[in-house]
Amino acid sequence: MAKKTNNSEDRTARVLDKLAEMGNQAIRDIDRNRSPKLSIPVRSLSNVSFNKRRSIIELGSSKQDRTFFNVGMAKKFMQTYLVAQACKQLLDEGKTTSIRDLYYMVKHTIGDSKVNTVDEQAESDACLEDLEVTIDTLREELNLFASNRGAMVGKVTLVDSGDTIDCRRMGSGGYSIPSIVEPDVIQFVEIDADFVLLVEKDAVWRRLNEDKFWKDYNCVLLHGGGQPSRGVRRMVHRLAMEAKLDVFVLTDNDPWGYYIYSVIKQGSINLAYESIRMAVPGARFIGLSAGDKEQFDLPSDDKLRLNKTDVIRAKQIKNYPWFQKKHWQDEINLMLKNEMKYEIEALSSKGISFITEVYLPHKFANPKEMLD
Amino acid sequence: MAKKTNNSEDRTARVLDKLAEMGNQAIRDIDRNRSPKLSIPVRSLSNVSFNKRRSIIELGSSKQDRTFFNVGMAKKFMQTYLVAQACKQLLDEGKTTSIRDLYYMVKHTIGDSKVNTVDEQAESDACLEDLEVTIDTLREELNLFASNRGAMVGKVTLVDSGDTIDCRRMGSGGYSIPSIVEPDVIQFVEIDADFVLLVEKDAVWRRLNEDKFWKDYNCVLLHGGGQPSRGVRRMVHRLAMEAKLDVFVLTDNDPWGYYIYSVIKQGSINLAYESIRMAVPGARFIGLSAGDKEQFDLPSDDKLRLNKTDVIRAKQIKNYPWFQKKHWQDEINLMLKNEMKYEIEALSSKGISFITEVYLPHKFANPKEMLD
Repeated sequence: MAKKTNNSEDRTARVLDKLAEMGNQAIRDIDRNRSPKLSIPVRSLSNVSFNKRRSIIELGSSKQDRTFFNVGMAKKFMQTYLVAQACKQLLDEGKTTSIRDLYYMVKHTIGDSKVNTVDEQAESDACLEDLEVTIDTLREELNLFASNRGAMVGKVTLVDSGDTIDCRRMGSGGYSIPSIVEPDVIQFVEIDADFVLLVEKDAVWRRLNEDKFWKDYNCVLLHGGGQPSRGVRRMVHRLAMEAKLDVFVLTDNDPWGYYIYSVIKQGSINLAYESIRMAVPGARFIGLSAGDKEQFDLPSDDKLRLNKTDVIRAKQIKNYPWFQKKHWQDEINLMLKNEMKYEIEALSSKGISFITEVYLPHKFANPKEMLD
Repeated sequence: MAKKTNNSEDRTARVLDKLAEMGNQAIRDIDRNRSPKLSIPVRSLSNVSFNKRRSIIELGSSKQDRTFFNVGMAKKFMQTYLVAQACKQLLDEGKTTSIRDLYYMVKHTIGDSKVNTVDEQAESDACLEDLEVTIDTLREELNLFASNRGAMVGKVTLVDSGDTIDCRRMGSGGYSIPSIVEPDVIQFVEIDADFVLLVEKDAVWRRLNEDKFWKDYNCVLLHGGGQPSRGVRRMVHRLAMEAKLDVFVLTDNDPWGYYIYSVIKQGSINLAYESIRMAVPGARFIGLSAGDKEQFDLPSDDKLRLNKTDVIRAKQIKNYPWFQKKHWQDEINLMLKNEMKYEIEALSSKGISFITEVYLPHKFANPKEMLD
């Protein structure tokens, strides 16, 4: 436990230093009769690029100044410092909270006016993102959390907030993955698995857990409840990096499934500044593939036809630099040609445990069918 | 473990008997050259009433026939039996699945036609509800589950699917509550708590968990992630009935929060046929109350004004028979008079742990402020 405390103190001290420096900088500016300003990295698409060598999406170096003596920026400037102050308070008191709470923490009526510091949560949320990227710190390191999302089961023992948790013995629900999985909160004690299988949906995860797939295949089984949360992505990243586990991703066969895979593999556009701590460049896509329809004789159905939004999204991701490999272009083209999408649950029409007994064993026996 | 297996076998045998009887009845009708029919209790508002003595919402005795030899009913009749057949298969194989999977299990193209047995999940969902109420069996007993929702922490040790789980040692995320918490899946081993505190929101739950409220107050702390799922309701019900624990409910101060409390206490209109296994007639409402604004000097804010939907909903629930007690009429009237609503998070403007250190201790010291 000593190690945990040290880790936690290290992180807190490091982040508090950055926050203090941000405050000191404003004081120095004021002392020199200059308008206090912050240099904030630009988070728009124009400043995001795909690093082919490292295989992750990265934030570029463009920055924008936020100045206090500027009618258009003064309020945002104040809000950014209020958010920083609230985060400092959280770290000082060793407490965590939600971004909804943060909104209430920074919300005050200014003096005798009727003007509030913030009116909508969207304002404090945006300032938080600015703060994260400005001082290069994850929100989780600022003690802000989101809801628990996703679950994990498998041959992993970890310590979460001082409690030892054996993910082999977590009942039908598995270990609920918190949004903060930083090393000072969660330490791996023992990992006796060969790979990580991340599935998109909890219903599929439950089927695989009930069939004890993770026992037979010696893996760690996670789901993200749809688009994986930051906590789930960090957890997969840590398993991949710290325990050197391979990562396989199982999603629906539709553009959204492809994108979930790509977010795990190389990061997302919105959170490009976090790719380095989230992405798993070695991750592989295990299905469903557009070719699985024929191979596994899945039922045809007009309701499964790609709709307009699906087609637009498919064409969009087809143009992303990280989908330019030939096998990915082929995969997306085949889906567009078939004009069909498939949920993993469609496998259930072949039998309740078809996915455990036939589909996944086939894929693991034929790694050429996996896409990277 | 022997006990668990027996329980499970008992339940399965009992439910399979009911399903078999449903099939046999159709066969008998056919043998007698009659049109097979099912008698299905009506689930609409007209057949729902509030039992004042038992303090729960109940389903009435109206039934409707669903006949095979009727052009308007034949397809639904077939679907109902297909759903029953799929449930039988699940029970026979000892497997559980989601209602999405169920939809795929019953979906087939009929013979050489282009007609599907079901086109939308809504159809199989409706048939499942019909089946539940017709054979008086919860969907969880038919081995159908929903996503895990909500979390629990506190002085409870239970066995979930054979794994012993100590809810004192579940890290920051707590024990994730499955949708199936029937006694054959989950057995309480030891409960050393004085009461149950159910909070609406996970962020508030997390605050209380981090502050170890459940240790100081010797309670079981649950959240339902908004409107509590069936699993959470069953869990609270079981804790209340089997361990005779008092139940307190903490929600936002708005019509939706009041309704969450009432669903825990006396059941919901939609699931009236399940009230008897879900409702906790002794549950008490601990806040936020409309009077808390003044008492705790919460910040005023135009954004917190009741909107049109809130007002309509408030007037609606004010008319429900189970909100006719004078203190509830006063409570709803005060909210309508204030024209304001409050999130629990609003307490954070008074301090991060204000809820743990001031609000809840005050309420427990002044039980008269709680509503039942």
